[in-house]
Amino acid sequence: MQERADDVAEVLAANRAFYEAFEAADMDAMSDVWDHGDAVVCTHPGWPRLEGWGTVSASFFALFQGDPPQFIVTGERATVVDDAAWVTCDETVLAGGGAAVAAVNVFVRRGTAWRLVVHHAGLVLDQPS
Amino acid sequence: MQERADDVAEVLAANRAFYEAFEAADMDAMSDVWDHGDAVVCTHPGWPRLEGWGTVSASFFALFQGDPPQFIVTGERATVVDDAAWVTCDETVLAGGGAAVAAVNVFVRRGTAWRLVVHHAGLVLDQPS
Repeated sequence: MQERADDVAEVLAANRAFYEAFEAADMDAMSDVWDHGDAVVCTHPGWPRLEGWGTVSASFFALFQGDPPQFIVTGERATVVDDAAWVTCDETVLAGGGAAVAAVNVFVRRGTAWRLVVHHAGLVLDQPS
Repeated sequence: MQERADDVAEVLAANRAFYEAFEAADMDAMSDVWDHGDAVVCTHPGWPRLEGWGTVSASFFALFQGDPPQFIVTGERATVVDDAAWVTCDETVLAGGGAAVAAVNVFVRRGTAWRLVVHHAGLVLDQPS
């Protein structure tokens, strides 16, 4: 197991690229962020899990038809273990009245790039349930 | 990157051990499931992220004072990348009126054991938001 400062910086950059693609409603950029395969999983806040790049990409295509959300992403924590990495962070989503969301994003290293394989975002409620 | 059938089976067993410790409200078992360090992150449904084993363990200690939940865990998907692994799954939580939850659990290999480093559970609402 090894974790280099460069790896952490690269993973944090990949994490930012995800939110930038989301804010820009840029399907090409979002496609570049993600790994493409049956194993990818995406859970939008309040949604059931979506599995496989086909289903995941369709969800972004649908979301991109509406007003794009803006994200304030804070508290990023990155962990790198060999060719896998994950970032946990808080998303303040400035859309539809606003929402507080806790997220985890898992990446795998593909050559020199880190590709997103799991995005899991859950609503933070006022009261723990 | 390598993924052996044995690795996947071990990770799925570690994932089951988490839910069994939760159902049993067994703090010793829960402590054995988790990695212990500042980098662990736990997000209970609707809660903000909790960071570090001290904070995470305190949350389980508090939860274990109430009626223990029962879990029906389905749809487990495990991915192993070297010494890291993650499982996504659905939790039907039979407590407090019941809840549908989507979860991702990230593990790291420590010697011959897989230890939980991220548990992230989010409520699935009736309508996507």
